[in-house]
Amino acid sequence: MNAQLKTFSQDGDYKVADITLADWGRKELDIAEHEMPGLMSIRKKHAATKPLKGVRVTGSLHMTIQTAVLIETLKDIGADVRWASCNIFSTQDHAAAAIAATGTPVFAWKGETLEEYWDCTLDALTFTLADGTQTGPELVVDDGGDVTLLIHKGYELEQGDASWVNSASGSHEEQIIKNLLKRVAAERPGFWTRVVKDWKGVSEETTTGVHRLYQIAEQGKLLVPAINVNDSVTKSKFDNLYGCRESLADGLKRALDVMLAGKVAVVCGYGDVGKGSAASLRAYGARVIVTEIDPICALQAAMEGYEVTTIEDTLGRADIYVTTTGNKDIITLQHMQAMKDQAIVCNIGHFDNEIQVDALYASGAVKTNIKPQVDKFTFAGGNSIFLLAEGRLVNLGCATGHPSFVMSNSFSNQTLAQIDLWANKDVYEAKVYILPKQLDEEVARLHLEKIGVKLTKLTQAQADYLGVAVEGPYKPEHYRY
Amino acid sequence: MNAQLKTFSQDGDYKVADITLADWGRKELDIAEHEMPGLMSIRKKHAATKPLKGVRVTGSLHMTIQTAVLIETLKDIGADVRWASCNIFSTQDHAAAAIAATGTPVFAWKGETLEEYWDCTLDALTFTLADGTQTGPELVVDDGGDVTLLIHKGYELEQGDASWVNSASGSHEEQIIKNLLKRVAAERPGFWTRVVKDWKGVSEETTTGVHRLYQIAEQGKLLVPAINVNDSVTKSKFDNLYGCRESLADGLKRALDVMLAGKVAVVCGYGDVGKGSAASLRAYGARVIVTEIDPICALQAAMEGYEVTTIEDTLGRADIYVTTTGNKDIITLQHMQAMKDQAIVCNIGHFDNEIQVDALYASGAVKTNIKPQVDKFTFAGGNSIFLLAEGRLVNLGCATGHPSFVMSNSFSNQTLAQIDLWANKDVYEAKVYILPKQLDEEVARLHLEKIGVKLTKLTQAQADYLGVAVEGPYKPEHYRY
Amino acid sequence: MNAQLKTFSQDGDYKVADITLADWGRKELDIAEHEMPGLMSIRKKHAATKPLKGVRVTGSLHMTIQTAVLIETLKDIGADVRWASCNIFSTQDHAAAAIAATGTPVFAWKGETLEEYWDCTLDALTFTLADGTQTGPELVVDDGGDVTLLIHKGYELEQGDASWVNSASGSHEEQIIKNLLKRVAAERPGFWTRVVKDWKGVSEETTTGVHRLYQIAEQGKLLVPAINVNDSVTKSKFDNLYGCRESLADGLKRALDVMLAGKVAVVCGYGDVGKGSAASLRAYGARVIVTEIDPICALQAAMEGYEVTTIEDTLGRADIYVTTTGNKDIITLQHMQAMKDQAIVCNIGHFDNEIQVDALYASGAVKTNIKPQVDKFTFAGGNSIFLLAEGRLVNLGCATGHPSFVMSNSFSNQTLAQIDLWANKDVYEAKVYILPKQLDEEVARLHLEKIGVKLTKLTQAQADYLGVAVEGPYKPEHYRY
Amino acid sequence: MNAQLKTFSQDGDYKVADITLADWGRKELDIAEHEMPGLMSIRKKHAATKPLKGVRVTGSLHMTIQTAVLIETLKDIGADVRWASCNIFSTQDHAAAAIAATGTPVFAWKGETLEEYWDCTLDALTFTLADGTQTGPELVVDDGGDVTLLIHKGYELEQGDASWVNSASGSHEEQIIKNLLKRVAAERPGFWTRVVKDWKGVSEETTTGVHRLYQIAEQGKLLVPAINVNDSVTKSKFDNLYGCRESLADGLKRALDVMLAGKVAVVCGYGDVGKGSAASLRAYGARVIVTEIDPICALQAAMEGYEVTTIEDTLGRADIYVTTTGNKDIITLQHMQAMKDQAIVCNIGHFDNEIQVDALYASGAVKTNIKPQVDKFTFAGGNSIFLLAEGRLVNLGCATGHPSFVMSNSFSNQTLAQIDLWANKDVYEAKVYILPKQLDEEVARLHLEKIGVKLTKLTQAQADYLGVAVEGPYKPEHYRY
Repeated sequence: MNAQLKTFSQDGDYKVADITLADWGRKELDIAEHEMPGLMSIRKKHAATKPLKGVRVTGSLHMTIQTAVLIETLKDIGADVRWASCNIFSTQDHAAAAIAATGTPVFAWKGETLEEYWDCTLDALTFTLADGTQTGPELVVDDGGDVTLLIHKGYELEQGDASWVNSASGSHEEQIIKNLLKRVAAERPGFWTRVVKDWKGVSEETTTGVHRLYQIAEQGKLLVPAINVNDSVTKSKFDNLYGCRESLADGLKRALDVMLAGKVAVVCGYGDVGKGSAASLRAYGARVIVTEIDPICALQAAMEGYEVTTIEDTLGRADIYVTTTGNKDIITLQHMQAMKDQAIVCNIGHFDNEIQVDALYASGAVKTNIKPQVDKFTFAGGNSIFLLAEGRLVNLGCATGHPSFVMSNSFSNQTLAQIDLWANKDVYEAKVYILPKQLDEEVARLHLEKIGVKLTKLTQAQADYLGVAVEGPYKPEHYRY
Repeated sequence: MNAQLKTFSQDGDYKVADITLADWGRKELDIAEHEMPGLMSIRKKHAATKPLKGVRVTGSLHMTIQTAVLIETLKDIGADVRWASCNIFSTQDHAAAAIAATGTPVFAWKGETLEEYWDCTLDALTFTLADGTQTGPELVVDDGGDVTLLIHKGYELEQGDASWVNSASGSHEEQIIKNLLKRVAAERPGFWTRVVKDWKGVSEETTTGVHRLYQIAEQGKLLVPAINVNDSVTKSKFDNLYGCRESLADGLKRALDVMLAGKVAVVCGYGDVGKGSAASLRAYGARVIVTEIDPICALQAAMEGYEVTTIEDTLGRADIYVTTTGNKDIITLQHMQAMKDQAIVCNIGHFDNEIQVDALYASGAVKTNIKPQVDKFTFAGGNSIFLLAEGRLVNLGCATGHPSFVMSNSFSNQTLAQIDLWANKDVYEAKVYILPKQLDEEVARLHLEKIGVKLTKLTQAQADYLGVAVEGPYKPEHYRY
Repeated sequence: MNAQLKTFSQDGDYKVADITLADWGRKELDIAEHEMPGLMSIRKKHAATKPLKGVRVTGSLHMTIQTAVLIETLKDIGADVRWASCNIFSTQDHAAAAIAATGTPVFAWKGETLEEYWDCTLDALTFTLADGTQTGPELVVDDGGDVTLLIHKGYELEQGDASWVNSASGSHEEQIIKNLLKRVAAERPGFWTRVVKDWKGVSEETTTGVHRLYQIAEQGKLLVPAINVNDSVTKSKFDNLYGCRESLADGLKRALDVMLAGKVAVVCGYGDVGKGSAASLRAYGARVIVTEIDPICALQAAMEGYEVTTIEDTLGRADIYVTTTGNKDIITLQHMQAMKDQAIVCNIGHFDNEIQVDALYASGAVKTNIKPQVDKFTFAGGNSIFLLAEGRLVNLGCATGHPSFVMSNSFSNQTLAQIDLWANKDVYEAKVYILPKQLDEEVARLHLEKIGVKLTKLTQAQADYLGVAVEGPYKPEHYRY
Repeated sequence: MNAQLKTFSQDGDYKVADITLADWGRKELDIAEHEMPGLMSIRKKHAATKPLKGVRVTGSLHMTIQTAVLIETLKDIGADVRWASCNIFSTQDHAAAAIAATGTPVFAWKGETLEEYWDCTLDALTFTLADGTQTGPELVVDDGGDVTLLIHKGYELEQGDASWVNSASGSHEEQIIKNLLKRVAAERPGFWTRVVKDWKGVSEETTTGVHRLYQIAEQGKLLVPAINVNDSVTKSKFDNLYGCRESLADGLKRALDVMLAGKVAVVCGYGDVGKGSAASLRAYGARVIVTEIDPICALQAAMEGYEVTTIEDTLGRADIYVTTTGNKDIITLQHMQAMKDQAIVCNIGHFDNEIQVDALYASGAVKTNIKPQVDKFTFAGGNSIFLLAEGRLVNLGCATGHPSFVMSNSFSNQTLAQIDLWANKDVYEAKVYILPKQLDEEVARLHLEKIGVKLTKLTQAQADYLGVAVEGPYKPEHYRY
């Protein structure tokens, strides 16, 4: 980032790119509130009772305008909030400024280094009590699980298991985390144990983070109750699908102004994110090819008229590549070297390891920066590719992420999850929970009026015939929507 | 039906419309086999072991060409099969003839009366042992649950509970069932008890039938293990969705040759069947309006750009109505009376009570039959509507149902369920089961090659990263596809 | 056809398949009238003045329900009408019966031989005057130009030029026409000269027929004024495009019940018919490949996301082939032999020479008839293909053609063209005319109310700004819509 | 604009926002060249002959990256070029800088005042000969007709007709033009006469400018031959349609990040621009309503499933309004006052008078600037609307206009038109011409390879059958594509 522009608060309690952007951010926050009826309705409902009153909440989630509305919602219902972004490119600086200007500690700017990123995460989870003690949050809002990871790894170290921290293997980023933990160990003895003592739960936003949670839980290592927000229908079937349908093309356009019609585009993965991505590209007149490992998703793609084949089979004829898998090494260096000249490569999955960016850098390809988050890599043979957002989320790195309305659904689930975790802090075990269907339906309901939907009401006789209550929930748990 | 054309076998072991249609049916069966790779693959795999060897199987499922391929698959793996249709209009007479001609007992023709329908169901579930004893099937393939209902109600009666059979309330059809049970009680004492003694399980095809099963199970009355085939992903997310996307318009076109472009079409319900129906109508250039009771499905419809409102709000401006809900009284007599002149009314849900057909008949509206399964009802005020297939499944009543390829998915699940029920007959309890995800993925896999899909294979490193096996299953149970 | 069922009238003035179908036909006519507001409005407007009073009109146009409404419109405004179909498979027998039953001479049934077809055409253009003289029509409604061809060729012969009639070359069908002309020459000396003397004009329906007309006109041989109805916007941009979007899939479904989702479909030609065909197949989930010779249309197809390649490039991977070109030899015998097993081959262009059907028959491939208009041809190597409607228009041969609403646009243009030709019979020269834009807009206007369209009205100031009249026409002649 | 950033060249021969942006502009120019195969191919073909050698060309066309490639193409084939933008918001400053840096005079920056805009136009058309004489271009590339207007009005004044210049009526912008002409009259006597003397022709880009040309020609006042580039198929059916399908949403997203799914969007006008706009919005899941005055276009919209109604009928229920008509006063102040709170209003037609922006300013509504080209207007009643790009082209004002590939088609036509005008300068009359179909097909052909299209080649026999040449052109003049 442009060093001159970074703004630190006097008391060290925010780090944003430029605090003078706060006014602009506030104007956009006002607009966003209008598009986020779920959050506004939750604010209203809990205005008096303030169910999170005084609860320390750390958020690690893309510091966008929409997230700013989430933050202010959490504050409105009583929480004491600290925030970091969960991606080095995803912060909207005017959003961060607007939040910082209200006195909420926020540590995020667009274009952090990885070291800065993890420092910000640590800042966001460090609360200082009145007596000066440094401790952590009581609740965590996580997206991708970085806060959860940090606490678990820090705690593990303080519990005496230094094997991971001292291991040499792992990515460049892993090494940065290890260094940070060593530094904390030196500077703040007992910190993670204090953190874990007060920690009551985490709600996790995204497929990849949820996947991590289930893995930790299966290993019996999960320290707190967790709510899988991603698998609320009103999250994964909306944010992941309709959000990407809106924001993928936005990222591509702001990055390269490329004509999509007539292009051959490869979407790797046909989960919800892949479905939204493929639908968007096709609607622009691109010819979409899907790659899949799962035969069910592959058959779905075929039923929608997409060619389904391997990535190798597309090299030389495809113009655009988008990874959406949540898996690693989807696009390898060898793939990139064999692509059509000036192919565009990007990722819309949570982590940047879907594309072998490290290998690309190490390959000797010549990098030309076109503009922020848009780089051209030219290989020895003369061919080049464009890599967007250095392989990080293209919609957040090159555009502004998902629009407010769909995020209102996700963040309503987040807020309800936070309330639920706190309310049940003495009941829940250290497992992964999903919000009950009734809340899921409630979140949907809060968004209907804004867009003019009129719902039909069951008669009692119809409800009896179906064996459901008139007011829902309406579907069995296994229903897939 | 045209009485002259109905054909009974000499030994009473089939009733079809016209046995001379068998050759034509066989030609279409040959074509269908080519489109049903899942079933053909299962045949091949189990050709030697014949896992259903000698097992008595009753099927109650639309007697179409596709079902004929299912029947011959069950026979190929050893079963002793008897079959009826599960809808008075859904039989394809040449399919029934082709099956009857091979010596398989089948009792089905297009245009049965309700009395004939239930007699056929009884015929299909009556096996005569070598010693002349009349008994029932060991396994049931059900679609809508009519065989399951009949056995449960018959058994209840023989157990001494005559309350239902003697009750006066219920629809016209219910009365027919009661009469049948009384007749059986008189003619075949102890029959249902014998049936239940040998009965080992049922696999159920459709949303509505599954719903019935869960209700019976909740009441603790379920007599055998049941497999919910509907909720295999490769069934509900394919047959219900893509099947209807193909067959709804087919039914409308064969019925009335109506131009869909420019019309306003109302789809009641936005589950999988509604989603497929709405997509099809929109693709033809109709303006689709959706009605929903479930806020989540309603929000999905809105995200796809459909107007979502109540049926009352559409009266006078909509041209076509399609019910897809699995609920009753969706289109009432009052609705029909207030519709635009010459509106088209039809149902693609399993049962015909979605539209108040009885009330329509009782209303004094003048009925003009245009051709089989197409009737015009003219109200006193002069306005008229068209009712298709008397409110029964329009795709099966007015066209030929879903095409082979998608049914191959459903019926592969059915076949696997039958094999599974038999293999586990000593293990399973009287509960409702769903097939394991691995089988679901297997069914999908069997259909990929036919349409040229090339699947990507996980590396071991990728599988480890995801924490799954290279060969699957790939997704958690709660995954929604 | 089934000989027993063909019905001749006692006075020889109709030949239909079965006159007892008239009642059913009438019911469907009543329904169609409701969907054809343009024709009904023209009837009403000219009911009193009867601008075609006593004018002898011959029609050669698919004898469907929609055409029946056209015929009755022409009669309503005064014409003396005789009719034949313009394709051996396109007649709906109940439509023909309904027309015959009203006393209008009609000569058409589904499944004519080519000899019968041309005899019917001759019957339709033979009017017998009160004095017993045989003469011809004063106006012709043509579709494909067969009546126009017959009169021109007959007249040429009577003018002393027997070169064509006596030439040996030409297709099987051409030989049949030559034989007919020789027979007429023998039986009705001077007939064609009498016909031409009274003939005042022809309005032509379709791309191919119009193409023929321009060719004759360029050669200076056109005998009468002609109106190119095809190139009214409300014809070619509606009937050809939206009509095929509705009827292609209808033909495929009624023929083979094939699942379209997941299939690879090749559409040869991307004119209006190709555009409608491709859109329909894609909407069903087929993956559509387009072939084109015209770089502009090819680029349009690419912009819509279709793969555009040669037919040779698709052999072995495509499941369905549809020709829409108006050209010949698009699908050759060699192509068919190299197709994937059980590929489906059909044509939706006007003539059947787009597919090399003659060569297919001559190839020694074994033909198996599945049902009327559906044949399987098996090649020596074991591979087979399905040929629909023997290569004739699949939508009319295997289904019922375009729906009423879109045909109301086309036939309104036809009717206005007939009125215009008669009104200007002393003014127009023997050239090809197009209807003025004002009539084109009028035809559109007549169809708006039925589907609930509310038009915006220009203010005078806006009209002045644009330099148009408030009531139109609104666009320059070269505007493409 | 930000005054500090504006850069003037020392010799006064360019005015751009910031010449240091040239490097970035050049990088994007390099990328664009890859996407503009038509222009690159024309460069190559005429590299040796330089058909515009030494010809003075003035361009008035959005100064974007794509236009920069056009400018360099014109220079490559010999032209002496000066350039201005044709809209105050449409310049991409890095594109202008890149062009200025090569020594080509360019006068354009994003955010000009109207006075600056017209001064730039004058700068662009003022060539100074070696002897110091100020004169004008020999050829003009116009977009919207502003250069053509200025020359015609200036010439009219010098010919002694001062009526228009002295008239008081007209918009604010008209007054600015009049002032400019008075100033030129004072400072440069005889200038316009000199300009007209050398002026040989103009090629015009857009619907609105073409409309103006036909009006001037009809009045007999057109001074030079003009080529209507807009009505080349490869322009209007590509740029207008597919260009807007790509760039409208881009403008909306960059302006307000608004979720389009679920919104009700009104598209005023269903010409090519409206068709592209509606398709784009629908693809995002918006529910699109169309307004139209032309019954044919209205019927097209209905056939595509759009609701077609009046704008008045949408007030209170629509969220987004887009004007695409080329007409004025489409959205009035009264409309805006009655809209749903926070409705978004924008225009994608050439001129800004489609929305009553002047009346909005005069209404007393409170304007809040959110960010450049995004303003919120709050009415007395509390309701507000967002106005984008002050009613000017939203895709160019809020995003970067159409992508390169589609502009390569338009600009290939422009270049061919310039070559044609010069080659025929002694032949053509002062009329409006359209490029011959062969060139139109050639432009398409130049763009096929880039996107992998394989064209089918007619056989001689097929060409003969159609009566066309193997190499085209393939369609009659009236063909609509």
